[in-house]
Amino acid sequence: MQTEINTQIYEHGGDIYRNDVRLDFSVNTNPLGMPDGAYTALRENLGVCEKYPDPHCEALRRQIAQFEGIAQKDILCGNGAADLIYRIVFSIKPKKALVCAPTFSEYERAVVISGGRVEYHDLREEDGFVLTERIIDDITDGIEIVFLCNPNNPTGKLADAGLLKAAAEKCSMQNTLLVLDECFLPFTCGESLKDFPNIVVLKAFTKIYSMAGLRLGYLLCGDSGIIASVREHAQGWSVSAPAQIAGIAALKEHDWIARTLELINTERDYLTSRLREIGLCVFDSDANFILLRSEKPLYEPMLKRGILVRSCANFRGLGENYTRIAVKLREENEAFIEEIESTIAQREG
Amino acid sequence: MQTEINTQIYEHGGDIYRNDVRLDFSVNTNPLGMPDGAYTALRENLGVCEKYPDPHCEALRRQIAQFEGIAQKDILCGNGAADLIYRIVFSIKPKKALVCAPTFSEYERAVVISGGRVEYHDLREEDGFVLTERIIDDITDGIEIVFLCNPNNPTGKLADAGLLKAAAEKCSMQNTLLVLDECFLPFTCGESLKDFPNIVVLKAFTKIYSMAGLRLGYLLCGDSGIIASVREHAQGWSVSAPAQIAGIAALKEHDWIARTLELINTERDYLTSRLREIGLCVFDSDANFILLRSEKPLYEPMLKRGILVRSCANFRGLGENYTRIAVKLREENEAFIEEIESTIAQREG
Repeated sequence: MQTEINTQIYEHGGDIYRNDVRLDFSVNTNPLGMPDGAYTALRENLGVCEKYPDPHCEALRRQIAQFEGIAQKDILCGNGAADLIYRIVFSIKPKKALVCAPTFSEYERAVVISGGRVEYHDLREEDGFVLTERIIDDITDGIEIVFLCNPNNPTGKLADAGLLKAAAEKCSMQNTLLVLDECFLPFTCGESLKDFPNIVVLKAFTKIYSMAGLRLGYLLCGDSGIIASVREHAQGWSVSAPAQIAGIAALKEHDWIARTLELINTERDYLTSRLREIGLCVFDSDANFILLRSEKPLYEPMLKRGILVRSCANFRGLGENYTRIAVKLREENEAFIEEIESTIAQREG
Repeated sequence: MQTEINTQIYEHGGDIYRNDVRLDFSVNTNPLGMPDGAYTALRENLGVCEKYPDPHCEALRRQIAQFEGIAQKDILCGNGAADLIYRIVFSIKPKKALVCAPTFSEYERAVVISGGRVEYHDLREEDGFVLTERIIDDITDGIEIVFLCNPNNPTGKLADAGLLKAAAEKCSMQNTLLVLDECFLPFTCGESLKDFPNIVVLKAFTKIYSMAGLRLGYLLCGDSGIIASVREHAQGWSVSAPAQIAGIAALKEHDWIARTLELINTERDYLTSRLREIGLCVFDSDANFILLRSEKPLYEPMLKRGILVRSCANFRGLGENYTRIAVKLREENEAFIEEIESTIAQREG
């Protein structure tokens, strides 16, 4: 029997299934793991696996509505935020889309598989890969959908909220749908645009609650027509019952975001300064991951040491000398620094 | 806050979330529940919720390959079989599709949302809703995709294997894709067409392993182009990590199908004869559910007694006097018979 692995997908990183990995720095989920409350809720409710899940995710949406301060009718849950990206694209079927480069690759993949064409707004290294006013001019009349990721993945920088609002207004004026991916926003001090009219805001449990295996994301949108269309572009039961149970429990952990932020801020500073001491080019990050540039690729030598990092070789605008790493717990970060230091010393020696 | 419930979906039955239900006869999953081995595997591996699931479902596909005697490369897993129905349709984008009436409504919904038109092959009550040779003539040249469900839902009858092969051959000759939904086949003594070339066979864990809440289905197809296209019409991580874990464990329960078959055969006979004694019109079934016709609708009066049944009011070719019920455990079946007997006596009294 032959297996055909589409390695494309694993260019996202996180292939712990086909690598011998001691420390996974390629996946940027919360180093605190999944909240204990979510584990308890799952353990106590495993029987939900046997029942059809509520296709309307009513109890979950009620909890999200309370958490976000958004009306329940403006919330749609999905099988991870990635599921919603495809459904949004399938419901719009855009001929032309605008995405940043570099950014999360699923926006482009969804547009292309749906038969559309992608235009790129290139972020510049000299700007620290921060979104600038140049984006406004690139939102031209023929663009039907714009994807912006804030903070951007894999570069880690927040965009100015005023600039995002200006982009949203331009989109609104010319009937372009703006999809703003805020999956990493809870790791930062950035402002959400969830109250802004005529946009779709994407959120995920995947990252902030470390639930990548359960698959749970949602979108916020004030346009009931968009909500209905995105809902209809998939089966009704896309969100599993365990994901709904765990999501409800996670949102009840009231100090989770504050604890996460404190940890991430401390550890990102630690990693940034240590990596700069080693002589690596470290881009400033607002998020729970950091983009590095090195003289030689880090992926292979680090993997030999049992550490998986995210090579940025397949990001437009980056290359194999760029690497994204996650911000993890101090002990893991120390182990990482030690290994990367040896890797570089070995090369120079 | 307002909630907008798309009740359309619940016309599938199973709305235990918005009804006070003591016994759910509307959902036709295995009355044995989810295998103990699957529960154990989930309990022992809850940590997988934190890790990105393997998008290639390698370990699960290896197990399915062994179970089905099919090459691993010919297997694609999805977030329930319903997920795969939409992805197949999105990848084919058929202008014209053929579906039976009555049958499972998701085929039609997927085709319509994808922009296609549906033609109906009407099953006849005088044939006991069994598929006949008339199907062959209805597979005309302009049909790009045909959905057949074997045994058919909600009518419960198996189609003749020779007839299905003839339909598959006609499809193959004129480049029409045949999707054969065998989600209920393991409850019957019917023959699988999984080895037949040029068709897509749909299978689910939902029904036979009672995993509706976990979401796990797969398709078998010898055409690598179709597999690749269906895979690409969704995110890579559509199958959750818990679903993969539970699916692997379920397939290791070697006597599961035999135990299920024995139970279903006995209980279907029991329900059929008791319901006929009561004076209901009961259609012969090969499956784990039974179609009834009554003089008046059963849905509302049974719900008042805390029993949810599947009204067939929204099935083309049926109506509100048709009801589908699940075959469950003896004690539940007895309670059901008692309640339906009282319902009918009350009406006549």
